[in-house]
Amino acid sequence: MLKNIMLTIAYDGTCYHGWQRQENALSVQQVVEEACEKLFGCHIKIIGAGRTDAKVHALGQVATLQVATSIPIERIPYALNTYLPEDIVIQQAKEQPMEFHPRYDAINKTYRYQILNAPFAIPQWRNYTTFVSYPLNVDRMSQAGKYFCGTHDFVGFCSTGSHVITTIRTIFDFQVTFQDRIITLEVKGNGFLYNMVRIIAGTLIEVGKGKINPFDIPSIIQSKDRKKAGPTAPPQGLTLIKIEYGKTLTH
Amino acid sequence: MLKNIMLTIAYDGTCYHGWQRQENALSVQQVVEEACEKLFGCHIKIIGAGRTDAKVHALGQVATLQVATSIPIERIPYALNTYLPEDIVIQQAKEQPMEFHPRYDAINKTYRYQILNAPFAIPQWRNYTTFVSYPLNVDRMSQAGKYFCGTHDFVGFCSTGSHVITTIRTIFDFQVTFQDRIITLEVKGNGFLYNMVRIIAGTLIEVGKGKINPFDIPSIIQSKDRKKAGPTAPPQGLTLIKIEYGKTLTH
Repeated sequence: MLKNIMLTIAYDGTCYHGWQRQENALSVQQVVEEACEKLFGCHIKIIGAGRTDAKVHALGQVATLQVATSIPIERIPYALNTYLPEDIVIQQAKEQPMEFHPRYDAINKTYRYQILNAPFAIPQWRNYTTFVSYPLNVDRMSQAGKYFCGTHDFVGFCSTGSHVITTIRTIFDFQVTFQDRIITLEVKGNGFLYNMVRIIAGTLIEVGKGKINPFDIPSIIQSKDRKKAGPTAPPQGLTLIKIEYGKTLTH
Repeated sequence: MLKNIMLTIAYDGTCYHGWQRQENALSVQQVVEEACEKLFGCHIKIIGAGRTDAKVHALGQVATLQVATSIPIERIPYALNTYLPEDIVIQQAKEQPMEFHPRYDAINKTYRYQILNAPFAIPQWRNYTTFVSYPLNVDRMSQAGKYFCGTHDFVGFCSTGSHVITTIRTIFDFQVTFQDRIITLEVKGNGFLYNMVRIIAGTLIEVGKGKINPFDIPSIIQSKDRKKAGPTAPPQGLTLIKIEYGKTLTH
């Protein structure tokens, strides 16, 4: 009998051209699909909860596949991981109702953006942070972050190339922390536009440098003008941390 | 006039066959020497404070070179870094008296060993931790760590292949911390035998699993028997954090 299996996937995006399967470039989706095909012995198409760009990482990407299998659900991560490279690891498998959809049923997503703020780059962090040598004011960045919370039209914090019905999104929480030369932005929202977190990160770096005043964030959002926001911060600092679903669907 | 220049070097050891220059394999020392030769335009031999094995990392390796240069000392890191790959970054350059020796004049060294203790591996940590899925008891590991402090003959915590006059070393401090599924051992001592930190880490993993009792550490040290200690933990969890020198020599 066909089952709808939800996978939670962690990956290091450094060597991939993003999540989404594409011609002539290796994607995380393709590698996971091929591992599934080896395990289940049939053609598999997986549906991801959201795309991530090249070099962007995930700790909790979610994807579903429909397959008829007798492998016990709790064994599937171990079995799939034997077919996956070291930079992609299935963290969990869970059976969901057939109507469950990883994108449409998501209630919120949490992203993390990491900035290394030090006089010199630290090699171990090169693939997981953006390096900024100019000393950043973390308090001002934290202050600015609060202004993103709430429901806003984020059309000014969005790259072209996305086709969405509405550019209104709600940010539930925005935390800025600083430890051991790493500034971490953690943002939880009901959804994010294309490059939205990276543009917010780029804007907060400008705030940290003193080029944008934290109090100007509301008017920058209201202007709906991409040019008023900061540059799109580099991809390797970004990680998709977690996607949450309604209780009735996940148990 | 010849200057004795001390470099502080951070590197990601993943792609190198250790610090020490060798035939037929790429070492960090070779890459730094070649960058120095490009910058200074002459043959350069650098002396490291200590070897690190293949895949072992450093945040604060120290090395010296003698060269006659008019480049201001504070510009040397920036200049050298332009000739270095992304996984090796000079953090500081400092002029020292000609008689300063990075190994003989070191007062203490600090190493960190990181263990990822989670049900599944996390790809982003694969080159910087040892992965242990079995749940480890961090309190017991911390308790065991304290017994390494003090002056002991660590001959039982040493791999063969090192030629040293004495196997007695002093551990000044041993901290075990746990955050976000990473167990971090940080150990500071006046010196370390070959593989000593990795064997201590391997022993603490056995303690964490319940296979060795923390109270048995003193007798394991006293036995001077390599077979009584735990296995040598994998290299990628290890980072050389810091080397300290006497005040009179570093200023």
